[in-house]
Amino acid sequence: MTARPPRYLDDLPLDAPFECGSFTLSEQEIMDFAEQYDPQPFHLDRAAAEASVFGGLVASSVQSLALSCGLTVRAIAGVQVMGGNAWEDIRLLRPVRPDRPYAVRARWTSVRPSESKPDRGIAKIAIEVRDGDELAMTYGIVYFVRRRPAA
Amino acid sequence: MTARPPRYLDDLPLDAPFECGSFTLSEQEIMDFAEQYDPQPFHLDRAAAEASVFGGLVASSVQSLALSCGLTVRAIAGVQVMGGNAWEDIRLLRPVRPDRPYAVRARWTSVRPSESKPDRGIAKIAIEVRDGDELAMTYGIVYFVRRRPAA
Repeated sequence: MTARPPRYLDDLPLDAPFECGSFTLSEQEIMDFAEQYDPQPFHLDRAAAEASVFGGLVASSVQSLALSCGLTVRAIAGVQVMGGNAWEDIRLLRPVRPDRPYAVRARWTSVRPSESKPDRGIAKIAIEVRDGDELAMTYGIVYFVRRRPAA
Repeated sequence: MTARPPRYLDDLPLDAPFECGSFTLSEQEIMDFAEQYDPQPFHLDRAAAEASVFGGLVASSVQSLALSCGLTVRAIAGVQVMGGNAWEDIRLLRPVRPDRPYAVRARWTSVRPSESKPDRGIAKIAIEVRDGDELAMTYGIVYFVRRRPAA
């Protein structure tokens, strides 16, 4: 990870979208991931995928989740995340297909200091995986984030 | 995938838990996955993890999600899943640590025929990742599932 200045709960800008980069998957990458983590015919087998409602091979939603998580975590390097609490509302809006770029955009949607632990709070980040102007997947992650230490 | 007799929306038993197997991760597997998909210090670096609130290396929740998804998909092979619609309420209750077995248990919690498309419906499955008697992670997946064709 690139060294970045630390950012605390108190520093997170609300509702300011930022770009996290993009990913593109080959057919082989889709099939290899699915073999291990989501072995369904429309992720594994081109002929079965063509006969499916998708009309062709599509990536496991777990793979899109993992790749967009990786890009987001790199984009927020420096934020003093103590751990994760939950993932919320993962909506699969459009399939992720091979050989197309999917852009990832994120924004902090809420921060709330802990009532019981003064060193931390809860921050929610909303993540979008975009296929051009359309949304392919949206979800949220709820993190525990450290508060800025008293000067 | 093992060939299994097809099961349709109409065949899914509600609220009957079934075992899907278990997974155990090595430290190296945790670090390799995190490097690609969730590069946070407590997933990547043993010293940083020991200094964190976890007190040691813990797996990315995306990795636990991917592994438990893979086990569940294998356990429901034969069910005529047409695609995914959403993932719901992923709660991270206890960290997933190296060299411990985590058992995966699932149950169908609801099935609802589509009002507009008579060939399909929506089925929800609840998945638990268990650390002995404790829950480590719980979540749901919402699938479109084919209905039994008219005889």
